[in-house]
Amino acid sequence: MPIVTIELLEGRNIEQKREIAKKITEVFTEVIKVNPETVQIIFHNMKKEDYALGGKLFIDKA
Amino acid sequence: MPIVTIELLEGRNIEQKREIAKKITEVFTEVIKVNPETVQIIFHNMKKEDYALGGKLFIDKA
Amino acid sequence: MPIVTIELLEGRNIEQKREIAKKITEVFTEVIKVNPETVQIIFHNMKKEDYALGGKLFIDKA
Amino acid sequence: MPIVTIELLEGRNIEQKREIAKKITEVFTEVIKVNPETVQIIFHNMKKEDYALGGKLFIDKA
Amino acid sequence: MPIVTIELLEGRNIEQKREIAKKITEVFTEVIKVNPETVQIIFHNMKKEDYALGGKLFIDKA
Amino acid sequence: MPIVTIELLEGRNIEQKREIAKKITEVFTEVIKVNPETVQIIFHNMKKEDYALGGKLFIDKA
Repeated sequence: MPIVTIELLEGRNIEQKREIAKKITEVFTEVIKVNPETVQIIFHNMKKEDYALGGKLFIDKA
Repeated sequence: MPIVTIELLEGRNIEQKREIAKKITEVFTEVIKVNPETVQIIFHNMKKEDYALGGKLFIDKA
Repeated sequence: MPIVTIELLEGRNIEQKREIAKKITEVFTEVIKVNPETVQIIFHNMKKEDYALGGKLFIDKA
Repeated sequence: MPIVTIELLEGRNIEQKREIAKKITEVFTEVIKVNPETVQIIFHNMKKEDYALGGKLFIDKA
Repeated sequence: MPIVTIELLEGRNIEQKREIAKKITEVFTEVIKVNPETVQIIFHNMKKEDYALGGKLFIDKA
Repeated sequence: MPIVTIELLEGRNIEQKREIAKKITEVFTEVIKVNPETVQIIFHNMKKEDYALGGKLFIDKA
């Protein structure tokens, strides 16, 4: 049942997402003893023009 | 005012989204008597590499 | 797998949530033929001071 | 620390996002005195087939 | 139609939310010329035990 | 910059959240080499009447 949504900048490859999904699922099974089959992970891949920090889009950062 | 966000795997066509939007709006007007013009629905279409269940990306499921 | 998040003003009772959950699940099983056991629905209940439309908090609407 | 997610119809250009990000960050530094470097803004760009109001997808509106 | 969700630490008062809602709505009407009546803002108020930065809950920060 | 939102049933204590936050942050620093100070985690704690699976609220499950 934990539903985990991850906003991250685009450019991560499938191997990295695979590893993140596997390891985050393990965190939940270890810490709160849930059935791994209930852990869900969603990646939202942001373009650099769609994320701003400090009032500045990432596309504008050096 | 209900704002409904739907995360689902990509591949649904417009006709299916049209029907889902229409029917979910009816659910809210029936059950909580809201004005249908206040019901909003947003679809987020996930790629199979962006959704994991049980620690495994959907792209890796047989 | 559809994960449905519903932002709505607080004050809906359990019977209304029960009915919304049941009927929205039926919409997905009818329209996209998913297994009902994969349909998940999350309610976020907003206070009237936490929702604004037209620049005005709901708590300030007559 | 405020994390601001904006769902809007696609078609806004980078200049508009740049201005929105800058001005919303200013709102938070003025009103709640946060360090601007902690203000984060995420844009989710919706296609017209992915947003419905009043039971109707935007792609179907005249 | 912009739907703006703001995750921020709890403790902001209604006057601050009122001002944030008003000013963010103005940003959208100025920059993308939308009808202010379509701008929606949702506040999610996080407890200090529900937000972590750098691997540490805010409740544990000095 | 990864912003991780976790929807889970209420009832987890601070010690469990502390451990989840610490370990998920480590996953990101290991797999995608981000600065841990950019990893943010938000917990949304759902009541049993606010989460449904298979058309049934959790409060109604035996």
